Amino acid sequence: MEAPKEYTHQYFLTAAECNAEKEMSVSLLAQRVIEVATEHANILGVGYADMAKDNHGWVLSRLTIEMKRFPSLNEEYSLTTWIEGFNRLYSERNMEVKGNNGETIGYIRSIWVAIDFETRKPVDLSTISWLAETISDRPCPIEKQGRMRPVNEPDRITSHSFQYSDIDFNRHVNSVKYIDTILNLWELDFYDTHTISRFEIMYQKEAHSGEPVALLIKQDGNLSDIEICDDNGTITRAKITFNDKKCR
Amino acid sequence: MEAPKEYTHQYFLTAAECNAEKEMSVSLLAQRVIEVATEHANILGVGYADMAKDNHGWVLSRLTIEMKRFPSLNEEYSLTTWIEGFNRLYSERNMEVKGNNGETIGYIRSIWVAIDFETRKPVDLSTISWLAETISDRPCPIEKQGRMRPVNEPDRITSHSFQYSDIDFNRHVNSVKYIDTILNLWELDFYDTHTISRFEIMYQKEAHSGEPVALLIKQDGNLSDIEICDDNGTITRAKITFNDKKCR
Repeated sequence: MEAPKEYTHQYFLTAAECNAEKEMSVSLLAQRVIEVATEHANILGVGYADMAKDNHGWVLSRLTIEMKRFPSLNEEYSLTTWIEGFNRLYSERNMEVKGNNGETIGYIRSIWVAIDFETRKPVDLSTISWLAETISDRPCPIEKQGRMRPVNEPDRITSHSFQYSDIDFNRHVNSVKYIDTILNLWELDFYDTHTISRFEIMYQKEAHSGEPVALLIKQDGNLSDIEICDDNGTITRAKITFNDKKCR
Repeated sequence: MEAPKEYTHQYFLTAAECNAEKEMSVSLLAQRVIEVATEHANILGVGYADMAKDNHGWVLSRLTIEMKRFPSLNEEYSLTTWIEGFNRLYSERNMEVKGNNGETIGYIRSIWVAIDFETRKPVDLSTISWLAETISDRPCPIEKQGRMRPVNEPDRITSHSFQYSDIDFNRHVNSVKYIDTILNLWELDFYDTHTISRFEIMYQKEAHSGEPVALLIKQDGNLSDIEICDDNGTITRAKITFNDKKCR
């Protein structure tokens, strides 16, 4: 079988899907990234069903989104994905986001780890030898995700408790719900005057329903570092670059 | 033009869409109801774009869901919709939910009001005379939504504040987010032992980001009445029938 190195999914942003700015939210974009990655993996024969046979499955480990602008109300947009590379521990999957008229409006980098659901340990990806054939040399012009340091001297600390509707079929907090929780650290009027130009998140440990977590925020100019943690350590770290709306 | 009195949309429940019970959540089902209603309205020429010309739009006023069971992980399901009737003030739209193998797994009743976005007043539906041609005599075997009384003597009162991610393009709380907020009044382990057989919600007034609201809960056997309100009155009322899982 000739493995298709690229895969594109066309979408349309409906009114019901828009955020208060009449645009696509970062969390809906993250949801689409997971969807498109899953669809391409299915085509390549390393999808949910293929992996589940061995009780393995893909887990999103890091996500970096860099957008010139987000798709807006009633806009057709597309995500094109390809695999940049992989090693024993993880696979790097990139995406290009296009708006209507085919203009490029953003790029995405994501890092996926295959885990054994029984042992919760990573699966050695070098055992899937033919995965090498799926690598594409298409460039992804956004910077790789850097090291995400702990938020040691937060400007703000808030407490939070994830709830029933945040939990997914693995009985952990849904990857997308961490993003909503982080975005909710700012009020609506802040988003009326600021856009997100880069959003990075690293998933370290899973959170559960009803367990209290702390959110630490450190702001430095247009850059905000966020850490979600509990008594046992880091759950998630994120970094957001905000831009003043009039400066776009 | 011959108006198609019925409209069906086929779906597939992906892993990422499942709740902790590996099933479709009530809030995702509500999202699909809004989607399918919108698609049918578009075909009938009374959709978002058609109504927007006069600065009018449909608003979901009441929703009643009665399910024998919810679609489960990797299941194909469909929603078929038809208009039961309308009067000057509102239109009644019903739906049948089918699981794989075409078995009927639930029915839905919904009531929609057309409003003028400028005056915020209802539009007189009798002016859309040809809407009468779209009425179907297909039966909907679930009981109509009854009168939803205020929760006068609550067993529980909790406070809540809707946040940025709850807000939709109208800058009010998204209809679906009220449902999540109501479902979050119970813990994960309650849902491990109980199913929802009937869920009714009435949208009375819009809530905004950051404004504090109270949630009142009155439980009577397997029936729970919920009211979301602020200092100025009722925002939403809901009624849930829970069933013990082993009794199904």
